[in-house]
Amino acid sequence: MERRGATVTGFACAKCGREYAPGEVALTCGDCGAEGILDVLYDYDEIAREFSRADLERSRENSHWRYLPLLPVGSEETLPVLRTGWTPLYHAEGVLGLPHLYVKDDSMNPTASLKDRATSVAMARAVEEGVSAVAAASTGNAGCSLAGFAAAQGLPCYIFVPANAPAPKVAQLLVLGATVFAVDGSYDDAFNLASEAIATFGWYNRSCAVNPYLVEGKKTVAHEICEQLDYDVPDKVFVPVGDGCIMSGVYKGFAEFERLGFTEKVPELIGVQAEGCDPIRRAFDGSCELVPCEADTCADSIACGHPRNWRKAVKGVRASGGRLTAVGDDAILDGMARLAKSTGVFGEPAGVTAFAGLVQAVREGSVTPDDTVVVLMTGSGLKDTESAMRAAGEAVSVGRSLEDVERAIRERAEI
Amino acid sequence: MERRGATVTGFACAKCGREYAPGEVALTCGDCGAEGILDVLYDYDEIAREFSRADLERSRENSHWRYLPLLPVGSEETLPVLRTGWTPLYHAEGVLGLPHLYVKDDSMNPTASLKDRATSVAMARAVEEGVSAVAAASTGNAGCSLAGFAAAQGLPCYIFVPANAPAPKVAQLLVLGATVFAVDGSYDDAFNLASEAIATFGWYNRSCAVNPYLVEGKKTVAHEICEQLDYDVPDKVFVPVGDGCIMSGVYKGFAEFERLGFTEKVPELIGVQAEGCDPIRRAFDGSCELVPCEADTCADSIACGHPRNWRKAVKGVRASGGRLTAVGDDAILDGMARLAKSTGVFGEPAGVTAFAGLVQAVREGSVTPDDTVVVLMTGSGLKDTESAMRAAGEAVSVGRSLEDVERAIRERAEI
Repeated sequence: MERRGATVTGFACAKCGREYAPGEVALTCGDCGAEGILDVLYDYDEIAREFSRADLERSRENSHWRYLPLLPVGSEETLPVLRTGWTPLYHAEGVLGLPHLYVKDDSMNPTASLKDRATSVAMARAVEEGVSAVAAASTGNAGCSLAGFAAAQGLPCYIFVPANAPAPKVAQLLVLGATVFAVDGSYDDAFNLASEAIATFGWYNRSCAVNPYLVEGKKTVAHEICEQLDYDVPDKVFVPVGDGCIMSGVYKGFAEFERLGFTEKVPELIGVQAEGCDPIRRAFDGSCELVPCEADTCADSIACGHPRNWRKAVKGVRASGGRLTAVGDDAILDGMARLAKSTGVFGEPAGVTAFAGLVQAVREGSVTPDDTVVVLMTGSGLKDTESAMRAAGEAVSVGRSLEDVERAIRERAEI
Repeated sequence: MERRGATVTGFACAKCGREYAPGEVALTCGDCGAEGILDVLYDYDEIAREFSRADLERSRENSHWRYLPLLPVGSEETLPVLRTGWTPLYHAEGVLGLPHLYVKDDSMNPTASLKDRATSVAMARAVEEGVSAVAAASTGNAGCSLAGFAAAQGLPCYIFVPANAPAPKVAQLLVLGATVFAVDGSYDDAFNLASEAIATFGWYNRSCAVNPYLVEGKKTVAHEICEQLDYDVPDKVFVPVGDGCIMSGVYKGFAEFERLGFTEKVPELIGVQAEGCDPIRRAFDGSCELVPCEADTCADSIACGHPRNWRKAVKGVRASGGRLTAVGDDAILDGMARLAKSTGVFGEPAGVTAFAGLVQAVREGSVTPDDTVVVLMTGSGLKDTESAMRAAGEAVSVGRSLEDVERAIRERAEI
């Protein structure tokens, strides 16, 4: 029997709460404009009638399409082929003194980051809608992810980057067949030109800032954590936070499984930003208004000085009883090495920021060995070997004799 | 019920054919010395009694441990946790004009290369044998793979590299917690010192040149191809060839499934070397003697001037009715971009060498649209962004106006 995605029953503005019927609104809220990012609505009673834990137990679907009944896409026919999601959840028993610590390794996605979850849903929508091309402004994981999925789908892909974007990242986009426009200006200039071009040419917009379907892809990481822990929801989940989309998705995923009766609670969600770029944390702790900032952190994938999905993120964290925190670049680089050395999971700086936040929380005593904790690792360390070089120690220089090796081992043992 | 690995019934020398009972020999053949790499033997009649296609159909094991009954490891208890194998096989329909082309993306392994298959079996053995540490000489994927698995297992890991090894690769080893010895000399010096230290300190040796169990891990990629094609064995499988271990494993995997009656044939195996380093191809085409060479190719992961497992590889290719071929660096870089653009699979140079060989074969007419072809892609393009920059085209420089974008698109359409 052909499996089908979820029927979208409407949209709700994340700012003013106004609801829309399907087709009533194009992308963002009619009242709030660009500020009013929409949330996708479903009829969960309807979904619960046709989708159960038993279905998942039987499922041999080796990707996040195992949650198709909760995703806003049509039939299986039009799903992208690149295998996305259903990534490993490793039990990092005893790491940081925590017997119940788990690491979700989302670098094991087709373009090596969690962004693929969002892109896969966007591509499914784009194909259903019969668009001529897909587009985004991005120098990082979102751009690479879109380029990869567009290549697999045979759709033209246009990526807008600032002219000073790093050559290796641009090279990856080009190798994956994207047309890359190097815009003479800042990232904001690239973003604005991308928006204009997308509107003019009718391309599909892969931007969490306007497209409500992207968060829907990201929520599957929470579904997977539930299923992989046999529906025994952890006490705390640590999540890196940049523009707020991942946190929005993580909250929604946990809330949906609770709503369907698959689980009994939503875990405490702890969002971790980089100290050099923490406007969502400041909005959460203070005025509840967002004050954009200049980003200054090595964690480039979450260096988002003007986050768009901060309202959804803040709402999710609050509803979960969690909090937002921030860690410095030194803690992030230290976290990169500690996570890799203790689990074999090698993440980029943004990818390990949640782990760095956990290290801090353990030190402060807000996480204890009684807690069951999941850390979300969002992108491969291979994406940023510069930072790996900063985080790494030194090789031991030796001559060619065994005595050299013996001496070096002895010296290290004495340290 | 606890699942168990296969019982090793003996070993056979790949050079002279002499057989040994388990325990009778330490690592290589007593007669042939270092030249006599061993092949692991099993009782396939025994295995066939307890392992069937129906078992696989029922299996929800999301890794290559689904083939545990064919692997020389003990119980499930001691298996490494990093999720290895069961990587996607993508139908690249119509690419290169071939309706029946499939790409096996083995970059989706824990350290982003096929080497993880071999490491996972080696680590399982190391843990069973209760070793104090693991070690290897490597500047590349094998070293990173061993460091990652050792980190996850909490075992010390010693890697020997030549002093001039590239800093980013050394950084990855260090971040993953390996002790890296930078040996004042060449790769051969590092290899020799590693062998001496391993023998002296009793570390576990992760080298295909001496340890017969590593090829056993690599054979699972062939098992997966069979299962993913519903046991309808392809006509031809293209495999990149460096030291010969992958080809040895691929042949063994296909031969085993035929022996068990799961499939009806072994496919034609086409090994592809880099022109700048093709001693196995020359041995195959000519004298059947190996003449080592200086390696000169961008495909560093198969730049192996003195391959150790060439005999097993040549034997496998011959038994399959296949052949060995070679492609130049330009073809490899072109293959990197063509594969990425047409499928979204972004590989390092060695990883795409088999695809470059297929491009050549299609041009020569030795592969036609009637053929069902599988191409093995062995490592992530993120491991070598330098080469990606050489393979990539150029970004389109534009100002900040829509007219710039329109003009650029028009100009590209005219090309």
